[in-house]
Parts: sequence; structure tokens; C-alpha cells
Amino acid sequence: MQVYQYPSPAEWAALQQRPAAAEAQQVEERVRQIFDDVRRRGDEALRHYAQELDGAQLTELRVTPEEVTAAVALVPAALQTAIRQAHANLWKFHLTQREEPVRVETMPGVMCWRKSVPVQRVGLYIPGGTAPLFSTLLMLGVPARLAGCPEVVLCTPPQKDGSVNPVILFTAQLLGISTIIKAGGAQAVAALAGGTDSVPAVDKIFGPGNRYVTAAKQLAVQRGVAIDLPAGPSEVLVIADKTATPAFVAADLLSQAEHGPDSQVVLLTDSVELLPQVTAEVERQLAELPRREVAALALRESRAVLLRTPEEMLFFSNQYAPEHLILAVRNAEELSEGVTSAGSVFLGHLTPEAAGDYASGTNHTLPTNGYARNYSGVSLDSFLKKITFQRITAEGLQNVGPVVETMAEAEGLRAHARAVTLRLESLLGDA
Amino acid sequence: MQVYQYPSPAEWAALQQRPAAAEAQQVEERVRQIFDDVRRRGDEALRHYAQELDGAQLTELRVTPEEVTAAVALVPAALQTAIRQAHANLWKFHLTQREEPVRVETMPGVMCWRKSVPVQRVGLYIPGGTAPLFSTLLMLGVPARLAGCPEVVLCTPPQKDGSVNPVILFTAQLLGISTIIKAGGAQAVAALAGGTDSVPAVDKIFGPGNRYVTAAKQLAVQRGVAIDLPAGPSEVLVIADKTATPAFVAADLLSQAEHGPDSQVVLLTDSVELLPQVTAEVERQLAELPRREVAALALRESRAVLLRTPEEMLFFSNQYAPEHLILAVRNAEELSEGVTSAGSVFLGHLTPEAAGDYASGTNHTLPTNGYARNYSGVSLDSFLKKITFQRITAEGLQNVGPVVETMAEAEGLRAHARAVTLRLESLLGDA
Repeated sequence: MQVYQYPSPAEWAALQQRPAAAEAQQVEERVRQIFDDVRRRGDEALRHYAQELDGAQLTELRVTPEEVTAAVALVPAALQTAIRQAHANLWKFHLTQREEPVRVETMPGVMCWRKSVPVQRVGLYIPGGTAPLFSTLLMLGVPARLAGCPEVVLCTPPQKDGSVNPVILFTAQLLGISTIIKAGGAQAVAALAGGTDSVPAVDKIFGPGNRYVTAAKQLAVQRGVAIDLPAGPSEVLVIADKTATPAFVAADLLSQAEHGPDSQVVLLTDSVELLPQVTAEVERQLAELPRREVAALALRESRAVLLRTPEEMLFFSNQYAPEHLILAVRNAEELSEGVTSAGSVFLGHLTPEAAGDYASGTNHTLPTNGYARNYSGVSLDSFLKKITFQRITAEGLQNVGPVVETMAEAEGLRAHARAVTLRLESLLGDA
Repeated sequence: MQVYQYPSPAEWAALQQRPAAAEAQQVEERVRQIFDDVRRRGDEALRHYAQELDGAQLTELRVTPEEVTAAVALVPAALQTAIRQAHANLWKFHLTQREEPVRVETMPGVMCWRKSVPVQRVGLYIPGGTAPLFSTLLMLGVPARLAGCPEVVLCTPPQKDGSVNPVILFTAQLLGISTIIKAGGAQAVAALAGGTDSVPAVDKIFGPGNRYVTAAKQLAVQRGVAIDLPAGPSEVLVIADKTATPAFVAADLLSQAEHGPDSQVVLLTDSVELLPQVTAEVERQLAELPRREVAALALRESRAVLLRTPEEMLFFSNQYAPEHLILAVRNAEELSEGVTSAGSVFLGHLTPEAAGDYASGTNHTLPTNGYARNYSGVSLDSFLKKITFQRITAEGLQNVGPVVETMAEAEGLRAHARAVTLRLESLLGDA
């Protein structure tokens, strides 16, 4: 980690920089070709890319109920229990995000309300690769189910033998998701955006992925499909004071660093003693990790910054707007009151980010890359639309009508005014 | 209006098409130049475009308190009263969208909650031109204020004499918005996205505009700034049965058509009698409108469709996903239960869309162009981020920790597991 001692606020902006993204133009061009191909050849294109990119020979793209049953038997009982517990916690937390319609009478006879209606067709993309992210499937599937989305389509790449990772299938079954497609990468996103014989087109696409998936989601947006969040590498910022345990802080930093070589890790502390203890612990623990090479690359771009006060650390963090913010300080609850930009916040010494990544109940799909300034993480809301309704009675029209007429005339929109006037006149006729 | 009688469902897709957008490449190129120019020359560029595009010679870009005071005196008392009433109704309705944090103990000792935090810096863009949209300023300003956004910046183009429309300034004062910049078009959006000496950079940009403004908002998104909604021409779909009054339906259709030549207007009815009565009324009322030429252009691309049942009309409407949906039917409340995609819904014969455009309390910034399938309109939420928090006690870690360890190991993320294990071990040591 790069260490900075008491940088002046003028130097902060440089320390808050994210690593620059790689040149994307080539990726975009390739993704555009894949979209065209999937639009033209549909399922045939998906089979082609499964062979070319995943090394899998597929005839059926849809996972069958028999495949699911067989896969479930392969998942160890302890893992099944853990996933069920995480599912229960996520369900419990996201349930509190439900909103009942409240009818408001803004003026006598003018009733307004807002109702949550599920996005009708949603697509969940779960990458394959070495670490199958069944936890992300939980994080997206639970709010999709709670929202009541009538159509939930899961796309995930096949393994070389044409099967799908059993833990993914177990999790899908737990969530009651039965439309599971063996397709990965940009081609999966293209299929979800435009539809094929096997893949229903959807209104909104969720889920993480590599540069191709990210570029494909951007292209989907251009074609009228919504997505969960703009993408970026995962990141954590830890604010630690002298009460923090160096080994815990180091473990939290490393659990972020192991995600990928572009993960970003920032430590802020006001303790001159703690800083070298943490960096030493990071080195020590790093050596024992299976993914130490990945983590070491991420750490090279990461920063440990010594600042003067808790207020300064909070100010720095709000400017940086981290995806994950750990408050490893004595008075975490008090400090948390001042957080204005972060995806998810972890309070105190016994609250590792890993808890929120898997099982505490909060969602782990969060804004990265500074987007915590202007976006929220995935929640029940991400799977809902809030539709407003109104109903006006004769009395209500007499109350609100003249207001509308006056404003519409002032904006030069006579037909708007007339839509009210005609109705008001008819009421006079009735009386 | 083009009339279609009992089209088969296979023909619906064509009837649900929006008018194609004009070629955008030239606009994009020009907007990119403007962004570069504003980044390079800042306020000087804004003064340059004010002269070139608005015909206004400016020295100061910021509206002064004296200008506001002078403008307020010019607004007729009746209009002031109407705007105050609309403000009160909007405030009342949006207030119900506030969410109090709910703390959930997902497992004993695992506390999770979610808090609404305002987007810190928001920019509101209000176009100038012939009809100054002070109503849109209300629609954006009320939720911005309710959310408590600490910095609210208003950009609106100057008139030829260098002043800002007085009704806009009156409304801004009512909303307590004091940072008002005389800048319009893409250059205003560029300034809000990147900041200049006079214009603070913001995190999220709201507001309507022409093709240049739309392209500028898209470019702002690429540069990490959020926006309210993807843009498109305004539209209404009316479902009318035989109980509807033809003159009211016609007035509602025309109040949409007068917005612009690209506005779209759709009438669905299951009444053979009503259809010709409405089209005749449209012709009659059209002739009396000051904006009849605009409205006539919009009507040319608009559709009146005869269908067989309320269910068919609802199904068509949900597929079309209109920005505004008027249910001019006997059993509006019942039919409204089946609405799955719409921006805002108006129930019954005495509820004109104009009420929601101005004063009933609901927001008029809504998803167009079919985006009601996957987006909600502007609400209090648009000015907030929902940040999740968690705090875990020793007991909580003993409950959730093993779940996290099991799942992290199964995903191959050892450092995640270790962040829990180290803490659990320390608890054993303490005991």
C-alpha cells in the first residue's frame, strides 16, 4: 500500500482518484457485433458463442428440471443451510423496504396516491468462471421475488461439460427461478435485451460481469432496456482509529483486494501507531492467501492515508464516496450520522464487510467508482416502478381547476386550460 | 387522427410504435464541442453562447437578489396564488414519500437499517423559449427541497434583454433556490456537469429540453453525472368507454397534442359510437386553439383504436406503457388495479391530465417513450440515496459468522472468510 502522511486537502483529489479504466473502444465494437449476431441468428448465435467462448457444446440452452434436481444433490448440506440462512436474512431486511400506498387528499376532492408495481420482466446475469457468484444470485433474486416480478430470467455461462454450476442451480431453485439459460458474457445480455426463441426479452437487466458484460449492458441501455447500476471495480474505504484491531482492519482490506487486480482499497486513520501495524498485518496475512497474487496487484494501487481528526476522515470519505465504508472506530454510530455518500456502511470492530457481502441481510450490489454520490445500491425499489394515480371529484375540480387554468394560461397552453374549463362548465350545467 | 377498427393483436406492435427519433449524430458532435468549450473557457464560454444562441449580452451569469425582487413584483397576484397552491399540493403529496429508517435485527445481534440521504448537489434545468416552464421548476424544486439537498443550482436561459422570465424567478424564490444561472441548452448542462467559476458542478441533473439538452444529459451520464430520466416526447393514452364525454376526451387528447409536433396521442375505446364523436370534437376544438398548428402536426401521427373489451384496452395500454394514462371509464378504480406500466394514471371523467401537469400534487416529470416499463417518474426518491448500515455484536457475529465463512469458502474467497474467522477467534480469546 502507498502511505501518505497528513496530505493537505489540495492533495486529496489525487488520492481519491480511481484507477483509470482501460481503453474500451475495441470492446464496444466486439459487443456491437455480438448484439447484431444474436439479433440475426438468435439461439444459434448463443450456441455458437457457448462453444467458442465457454468451450461447451450445447443443444438445449434452457436448464431442465432434471438438471436442477441432479445439481441440488451435489451441494453439501452445510452450504445449503448457510444459503438458506442468508436467504432468510435478506428476505427479512428487504421486506422492510415495502411501501404501502398512502392516499392523500391534497385539496378536498383531489385524491392522489402512489403504488409500487413490479417491473414485469427482469433478467439476472450471474458470471461463471472460477468463483460462481451464487451470493449475487441471492442478492438479486430475493428482491425480485419480493417485488413480485412475474418473469425472472437467469442467464449464466455453461461449464465446459455443458452443465451449470450446482450451487447456482440450488440457489435458483431456492428462489423459485425456473427460467435458467446457459449463456454468458455479452451474448447473454444481448439475448436478454432483444429476446431469442429460448430467452425472453426483459425490461431490466441486473448483475455483474467483465468488460464485455459491462459494455453489453451499456448497449442495452441505448436500446431502451434499463440496468441496475453503472459498473466499476469493487472498493472499500476503512476509517480506523486507535481502538481498531490491526489484524481485523488488514483482513477487511484484503477481503476487498482479493476480488480482482483492479479492486481499490483505502485506509484512513488518525492514529500514527495503527498505520504501520495495519500495513505490516496486511503483508503477513497476504502471504497466506490462495488469491495472494490478485490481492497483491490490487494493493499496489491502494492507499493508506494518515489524517488529523475523525471529521477530516469523514470529509475525505464523503468526497471519495466508497462502495463499502467500514467505521472501525470507538464511536461508530455517532460518526455514521455524518455519512453523505457511501453504498453500505459497516459500524464497529465486529462488523466485517464480508457479513454484508453474504449474509447479514443488506444488499451487496452497490454503487462503485464514486457513483455513491448519485446512486443507491440495489434494493426492493430496483425491481419496482412507483406509479402515481389521481382521482378528482366534482368538488375537487372546483378546488383545483382554477389553479390549473391560471397556470396553464400563463404557460401559453390553452388546451390544458380548456380540458379543465369544459369540465367545470359541465358541472355548472348539472347544478 | 388515424382510426383503426378492431386490429388483430398481431397488428398491435405497429400501433404501439413511437415516432422514430431524428438522426442524432450531428447533434452529438456539436454537444461534444460545447462540452469541451465550457471545460476550457468556463464562464467565458457561457457568455459566448448566451450571445450566440440566446441573443443576450451578459456580464454577470448569476441572477442577483435585486433581479429576483424586481421580477416578483411583475407576477400577477392571481398567478402567485395559483403557484403557491400548486406548491402546497405538491409538498403534501411528496411528503408522504418520506421513509423513516427501520432497524431490523435479521439475526440476534445483527442490526441492519437503511437511511435516506439527500444527493448533495443537484442541478435543475428549465428551458426558456415562448412558454417558460415554471411548473416544471415546481415539480423538481419541491422534492429537491423536501429531500434536503444542500446545494440546488437552477440554470435557465436568459431572454434577449439579459433577464430571466419573472415567473421562473418568483417560483425559484418560493422554493428558496438562490443559485440561479443565466445559461441554457447544452452549455448549461455542460456547466452543471463539470462546473465553472459561476456554476457549481453537481451530482445529478434534472429537467427537460430540446435535442441538444437531451444529448448533453447523455454525455453528462458518460462523465459520471446522474440524470432524472431518459428523454422522449410527451404522450397520453386515453381509455374511454361509452360513459365518456367526447368533448372531455377530445380536450385531453388536444392538451397533449399542443405540447409539440412530436407529442403522441392514443385513444382506445370499446364504443363504436364514441369514436367518431371524439374525432369530430377534436377537429372542432382544434380550430379554436392558439397552438393549433403544433397540435395538428402531432395529431397526424396519432391513433384512435377501436377494441373489443376493457381487458383488451388495458392489455394494449400496458404494452404501450404510456407516460400519461387516462381511464375515462365507468369503473376506473377497478380497471386501474390492472395497470402494470404507466407513468401517471388519471381516473374517471373529471380528472384531466392537466390537473397532474400543474397542481393536483403528483409529479409531472414522467417516463416517456415506453420507459414506463422500466422507470418511475421523478419523486422524492430521485433526490435521495438510500444508504444501508449494519452493526454486528459479539452475539451477532457468532450467529452470522459461520454462514459467511461457509459461503465465502464456497466462492473461493478466503480473505472474506478470514475477516470473520479472526474476529470469531478473538471472541473465544475474550471468553
